[in-house]
Amino acid sequence: MDKKNLIKQIKLKRSFLCIGLDTDINKIPSYLLGLDDPVFEFNKKIIDSTKDLCVAYKPNIAFYESMGVKGWQSLQRTLDYIPNDILTIADAKRGDIGNTSNMYAKSFFEHMNFDAITVAPYMGLDSVKPFLEFENKWVILLALTSNPSSSDFQNIKTQSGKQLFEEVIEKSSKWGTDSNMMYVVGATRASSFNQIRKIIPNHFLLVPGVGVQGGDLQEISQHAMTSDCGLLVNSSRSIIYAGHGIDFAEKARNEAKGLQSKMSSLLESKGL
Amino acid sequence: MDKKNLIKQIKLKRSFLCIGLDTDINKIPSYLLGLDDPVFEFNKKIIDSTKDLCVAYKPNIAFYESMGVKGWQSLQRTLDYIPNDILTIADAKRGDIGNTSNMYAKSFFEHMNFDAITVAPYMGLDSVKPFLEFENKWVILLALTSNPSSSDFQNIKTQSGKQLFEEVIEKSSKWGTDSNMMYVVGATRASSFNQIRKIIPNHFLLVPGVGVQGGDLQEISQHAMTSDCGLLVNSSRSIIYAGHGIDFAEKARNEAKGLQSKMSSLLESKGL
Repeated sequence: MDKKNLIKQIKLKRSFLCIGLDTDINKIPSYLLGLDDPVFEFNKKIIDSTKDLCVAYKPNIAFYESMGVKGWQSLQRTLDYIPNDILTIADAKRGDIGNTSNMYAKSFFEHMNFDAITVAPYMGLDSVKPFLEFENKWVILLALTSNPSSSDFQNIKTQSGKQLFEEVIEKSSKWGTDSNMMYVVGATRASSFNQIRKIIPNHFLLVPGVGVQGGDLQEISQHAMTSDCGLLVNSSRSIIYAGHGIDFAEKARNEAKGLQSKMSSLLESKGL
Repeated sequence: MDKKNLIKQIKLKRSFLCIGLDTDINKIPSYLLGLDDPVFEFNKKIIDSTKDLCVAYKPNIAFYESMGVKGWQSLQRTLDYIPNDILTIADAKRGDIGNTSNMYAKSFFEHMNFDAITVAPYMGLDSVKPFLEFENKWVILLALTSNPSSSDFQNIKTQSGKQLFEEVIEKSSKWGTDSNMMYVVGATRASSFNQIRKIIPNHFLLVPGVGVQGGDLQEISQHAMTSDCGLLVNSSRSIIYAGHGIDFAEKARNEAKGLQSKMSSLLESKGL
């Protein structure tokens, strides 16, 4: 999916919501466990009940990989089920030397047909470049993550007076364009959004941490929304595990609807 | 495998060789392609012909993942085939928020029973910790990689006058011990080994880049070998693709034997 279409979807749905499909077989309603592929059945119902409210789905690859062969089958089925007008993000945080990143790129972009993948920056340009060589696909580079220990390295001050995450954004933003790169920026650091927007005024940011991790939607929008929106805000557990019974999909929809309504107002107040 | 046993194996085999199983179906001898699981058959023959010469095997997960379900089956079969007295390293470069790293840890350490996994440091302590909670398992953290663009971020100077990779080693070495953590240090940077040994005198280093990537075995040993050896030197393509015909395993053995002989001398000159 290209940038133009993504923006179109955001305006159409009045939403910049990304739903994280962190589907854990130990957390899904027990009545699904007797089915042939419980993880896919869970995802299917979540997708059916939220697809008009979100513009992206982000399966967390670890949850599927940890189930071995069956997990990869559930992932592929889920991906095939997601409508084409919704951005699909492989939350894989890959990053390796050139020929290896190239294998990962083929795996996620060609074999599985994801639109985007999260990538770790530590190994530099040649670990990212192979992902940028696919048309209408996206690299979403880790910049400032929302986990408690993100400051261990990301906030280290460099000799130029910047923090590491700023150096990462500044350098890497020249590797691609705002049409094939986004950045992960943790929602718990709203104060950092201003700094980031000075470096990359137009790139989309994928913001995790709304919901369980506690980011605030209004603050994010105030500091980081662009004239094209420029935001995808992710919520995983607080939506998909909103309910635990037979009505789990309905409860997930209510939760997603709540976020989408807030997003609609925030878009409107930006004239979008 | 614990540290004591690893050192024992090194002394016994007169080798600190790690063989990278970067098995690419497009590069293996064509006569294998008619078999049910060509990737496993290739690995099996490589293992049969080199298992007395190396102390570790390191499958590069990207190569298996890119083949989908069949790839994971080949990987599991390969792993089950490797003798117990050889360290198995998942070259996966994972690293994510706590609950996700925990899924990866279970996947690689429990489900697949790897001894070790390579992990990316960018997200800090809570992305690494879940891997450290397994007994007799190893985290191998990326410190200084051997790819051309590793300097993009790893060599950035921080305000304390150190380079980023030194900060990564210094801080992270307190998260575990030299019995459950190793570091990836690229062989193309022999001059950096002295700096690193000042910070971590006793940790094992996994050194990629000997062979195709061009590191020099003698220089590495001179600067980084400890009284327990403290080194695993990896070679992938130059061993497994030494030959392309029906005698590929024999050619791989010759290549591995050449490296093992040099290693034996280097160990001896250290009194090991």
